[in-house]
Amino acid sequence: MALPFFFVDDLNISAIVLAEDSSKHITQVLRKKIADQILLTDGKGTKAITEITNDHRKHCEVKIISVEKENEPQQKITIAISLIKNTSRFEWFLEKATEIGVNEIIPLVCERTEREKFRYERLNGILVSAMLQSQQCWLPLLHQPTEFKNIITKQSDKKFIAHCLDEEKKSLSNELLNSSTTKQLNGSSQLILIGPEGDFTEKEIMLATQNNFQPVTLGHNRLRTETAALVAAVLLCNHQNSGK
Amino acid sequence: MALPFFFVDDLNISAIVLAEDSSKHITQVLRKKIADQILLTDGKGTKAITEITNDHRKHCEVKIISVEKENEPQQKITIAISLIKNTSRFEWFLEKATEIGVNEIIPLVCERTEREKFRYERLNGILVSAMLQSQQCWLPLLHQPTEFKNIITKQSDKKFIAHCLDEEKKSLSNELLNSSTTKQLNGSSQLILIGPEGDFTEKEIMLATQNNFQPVTLGHNRLRTETAALVAAVLLCNHQNSGK
Repeated sequence: MALPFFFVDDLNISAIVLAEDSSKHITQVLRKKIADQILLTDGKGTKAITEITNDHRKHCEVKIISVEKENEPQQKITIAISLIKNTSRFEWFLEKATEIGVNEIIPLVCERTEREKFRYERLNGILVSAMLQSQQCWLPLLHQPTEFKNIITKQSDKKFIAHCLDEEKKSLSNELLNSSTTKQLNGSSQLILIGPEGDFTEKEIMLATQNNFQPVTLGHNRLRTETAALVAAVLLCNHQNSGK
Repeated sequence: MALPFFFVDDLNISAIVLAEDSSKHITQVLRKKIADQILLTDGKGTKAITEITNDHRKHCEVKIISVEKENEPQQKITIAISLIKNTSRFEWFLEKATEIGVNEIIPLVCERTEREKFRYERLNGILVSAMLQSQQCWLPLLHQPTEFKNIITKQSDKKFIAHCLDEEKKSLSNELLNSSTTKQLNGSSQLILIGPEGDFTEKEIMLATQNNFQPVTLGHNRLRTETAALVAAVLLCNHQNSGK
């Protein structure tokens, strides 16, 4: 039976006090007591087996028994996705992207984005839960909402923009297949831009292609914003896996 | 501007009366009147441009102006996914699978499935909405819940089972990559089995491999049932697209 798995901000301190919600879950739901073991991660590659030294229901304390480090992923996959009006669809994307293995998520504000309130703490909490759920110890980096014009100068080995405008585009999967045979993507960073309902504007698409973003399609069907972002995430992450 | 897009069971009749919810949406939300045009599909490959002949708010009537047929997809992708306790997660999968282009969905009842109520009409309605949303005219076939022992004898050109047991498995993406170079999958049917929380039992996995299901992994992370099914759907559908 795997140890229960929780998150702490910092594992580099001697006396670790868990957050109130974790403490409550450990002591009241799981009914753990002093000397029981808990697995912790800091979301920065460290996993630690710890032992409960104080089973306080709000401020559970633990001491570290052993530590294991996992290297940072060699490839970095960044999804820049327009904010969408329906917050639960955006939150759903965050959960799935984390499970699948996306490394960085940039909420985009495009010309046609219908911006809603952005609750960073809540959204980052979804990433933490999904990381723990999928037994990972690297937390994706969630950015604050970013203006479109500020994303296009971002450095990345490979940059894609998925749009629906009727022009010559390769499919992302073919593009990855080709670069896989030529080993172009090994150890590289990859960034893809996903537009709002109603797509990017022509001006935005032009600006992106001028800045070396390659236009791609994600298949034949018209996809919702969060579905498109998810398809891109699966293709990029699985391409990464199959390259190993 | 694209025409508003609705579903009817049958397009092969002269006087088409739309369902109450469609009628209400057309007349009261979109405020369409007699002589306005509506696009209809029967979910069996037919799209028809129609004209409103009676703008009754409960029983809107239309006549067909022109008809267009789309061939049935050459390849058939079937996802057999264990039912899950959290119905909204299952419904979410149905929406995404439809958008992405899955052709057939079989809800599985495995040994470890925690079965919930299965509301066929409601779930099929989600498929219809997602089909319309993604501008498709083939409705995926949703089966009634099916016992695991009845799925393994199903015919399919290529059969996969995704499980987490620690044994020799190829990744699905590598497997598709290989079969793509040898052109094995063109025009074929593909079926993948996705297990419940807690995975298939060893007995189920053995039974499947004895019946020519090939064990595969979907990456390094532990995925929720609906996420695993979605990853499989994206990989299979995009493989199909890239083969075109």
